[in-house]
Amino acid sequence: MSHGSLDTHRQAWIDLAHAVEPGDARVGAWVEKVGAEAAAAAIARGSRADAPMGVHLEGMQARWRASGAQDAQERAQRLGGRIITRADTEWPSQLADLGHAEPNALWLMGAGSLRLLSLRSISMVGARACTAYGVHIARTWAGEFAERHWAVTSGGALGIDGAAHRGALESGGTTIAVLACGVDVTYPRTHDALFASIADSGLLVSEVPLGEGVRRQRFLARNRLIATLTRATVVVEAALRSGTRATARHAATVNRPVLAVPGPVTSPASAGCHRMIRDNEAHVAGEWSDVIDLLTPITESVVTDQSATGAADDEGPRAGLDPSTLAVLDALPARGIISVEVLVARTARDRMPVLSALGRLEGRGLAENTGSGWRLVRKRA
Amino acid sequence: MSHGSLDTHRQAWIDLAHAVEPGDARVGAWVEKVGAEAAAAAIARGSRADAPMGVHLEGMQARWRASGAQDAQERAQRLGGRIITRADTEWPSQLADLGHAEPNALWLMGAGSLRLLSLRSISMVGARACTAYGVHIARTWAGEFAERHWAVTSGGALGIDGAAHRGALESGGTTIAVLACGVDVTYPRTHDALFASIADSGLLVSEVPLGEGVRRQRFLARNRLIATLTRATVVVEAALRSGTRATARHAATVNRPVLAVPGPVTSPASAGCHRMIRDNEAHVAGEWSDVIDLLTPITESVVTDQSATGAADDEGPRAGLDPSTLAVLDALPARGIISVEVLVARTARDRMPVLSALGRLEGRGLAENTGSGWRLVRKRA
Repeated sequence: MSHGSLDTHRQAWIDLAHAVEPGDARVGAWVEKVGAEAAAAAIARGSRADAPMGVHLEGMQARWRASGAQDAQERAQRLGGRIITRADTEWPSQLADLGHAEPNALWLMGAGSLRLLSLRSISMVGARACTAYGVHIARTWAGEFAERHWAVTSGGALGIDGAAHRGALESGGTTIAVLACGVDVTYPRTHDALFASIADSGLLVSEVPLGEGVRRQRFLARNRLIATLTRATVVVEAALRSGTRATARHAATVNRPVLAVPGPVTSPASAGCHRMIRDNEAHVAGEWSDVIDLLTPITESVVTDQSATGAADDEGPRAGLDPSTLAVLDALPARGIISVEVLVARTARDRMPVLSALGRLEGRGLAENTGSGWRLVRKRA
Repeated sequence: MSHGSLDTHRQAWIDLAHAVEPGDARVGAWVEKVGAEAAAAAIARGSRADAPMGVHLEGMQARWRASGAQDAQERAQRLGGRIITRADTEWPSQLADLGHAEPNALWLMGAGSLRLLSLRSISMVGARACTAYGVHIARTWAGEFAERHWAVTSGGALGIDGAAHRGALESGGTTIAVLACGVDVTYPRTHDALFASIADSGLLVSEVPLGEGVRRQRFLARNRLIATLTRATVVVEAALRSGTRATARHAATVNRPVLAVPGPVTSPASAGCHRMIRDNEAHVAGEWSDVIDLLTPITESVVTDQSATGAADDEGPRAGLDPSTLAVLDALPARGIISVEVLVARTARDRMPVLSALGRLEGRGLAENTGSGWRLVRKRA
């Protein structure tokens, strides 16, 4: 694949990100069927005949035309940000777990690699209307996670989210804020200094274009990203009826463990946590180390984690692999199946070297061909 | 069985209660094999040849001789108490779940029927070194249980135990204190007014004779009684290393559900609760109704519960049963298998009427002959 065609491919994903509302699985299924470039072209043409029932090309065309998608990358760069697409090596492999609701592109501000940080990250979520107890736990536990080189991911909101981001920053760690608005929009306003700090040492992430505001539907779509981009979700405080519980349920659908922090049974802000534990929607997290303990047997066994920590483990499964094979290994999703075509796009390599690399990985027992695609082989200690 | 022989049989159990330290399963197995009267006679003779290895007749004989077992009933009555034995109809059927460690006799002070109260009771246990939070929860939840006609059982100790007893009393409910010393011994001293109130409206219970003091081994034996005499055990507060967790583990061995109350993760007094929830040793109890909810499907289905509430349910499984058959039904243990011989002793009836009653109960699907004994058939809603 030439450099030119990769650019075309990337721009197609960016066009789709401007045309499609986050989380639209019906459009996602259509895009997977026809390919990103054909889908983007069909949207640009706007002809109903090109898309199946339920995929409204006219509306997407109108959104795309109004968006200025063609110079989106330049505008992101002028603000100090960037756009990554499904075709980029920085694209987090975990997002494949979203299936047809996988984002098409993400806007980032900050120097870290979203892919590598996500491989070793914990999301902390909770109520905006939290208590001093919840703030204390979010802040101290985020600090503990950060000190152990776990990125702390949250939603940048008031309450638990803000406390988690601050706790990670205070410990000199990395924190990721996944926003429901454009990465250049400060919502809530009072978090502008916090967001600047996060962009300095961590990442601001959004699925919606620059300048876009928050909407109810986008909060839900954002919550699914938080759950999917991380290894586990910790619910610090949640009322019985709480959007936080929806995030936790989403984490469960993508097979991420959910933990809930108990609190006084007299506190309504902890009632949702206790209910989730009671109903087996969450494990109990009585101390921060419970979270790490739950993750360690998983993450230490996933070979791609070594790229997150940067460890040069000559004894490990990566030893002796050439850079091309390592790139394919790193492009395999942590869970789920991936096609050779997507691996080609992700690694920005030609088909033949990718197939050779897959053969080498298969020979080492690191990857396997399921018939419908390739997947990472997990090794448990 | 004549009245005279029942008295002899009862006295044999009382003799054994004076001779055997609580919870000695080796002696219990021997007693089951030879019968209570033969075992008591062997202890009185004190000949080693009468008992298997590991059953030390001389020591038991010395204990029994020093105890004044022969007039134990008169002494209990003079203090306003009584002794019940395995041969009495007030004997709680649940205790059969202890197998060979089942007590031989119990000293009681108070007017309530231990058998009936135990059928609808919840134990609340927790640390002596508890927090104001734990006291608050123990007291208010005990009140909620008591208002719903659940007897609240605890150990009479300082801390959580005392708060649970007080909460039940304050709500006009019934509370049972199971002591590690004689029912005439006030330990701790500061609970003398509390124990007097409990004896007034509930029950003081002990497995050890009058005048006996507490010992470490007796606390452990007492804890097994608390767990076994109740439908569920609620752990209000427990440190990571705590005797309370042993009570909870005992409840699990007799198939009683255990629930733990969460608390602030910053409180060491709740750390044991969180650990038990994490390790699946306890369900979470985020509100008092979680305890009731967990018990209701069990207790509403157990036919003997109707005798606890005194409900005259003409539609229920007890409708139309004659008093003799009802007595046998009530003598069947809630769990486990019972022999016809023990049913004869428990109901103080002759063998033939007991067999007839079992036949009627079997015909109604309320009891079944397992081959090795009879058991209650539970009906789920």
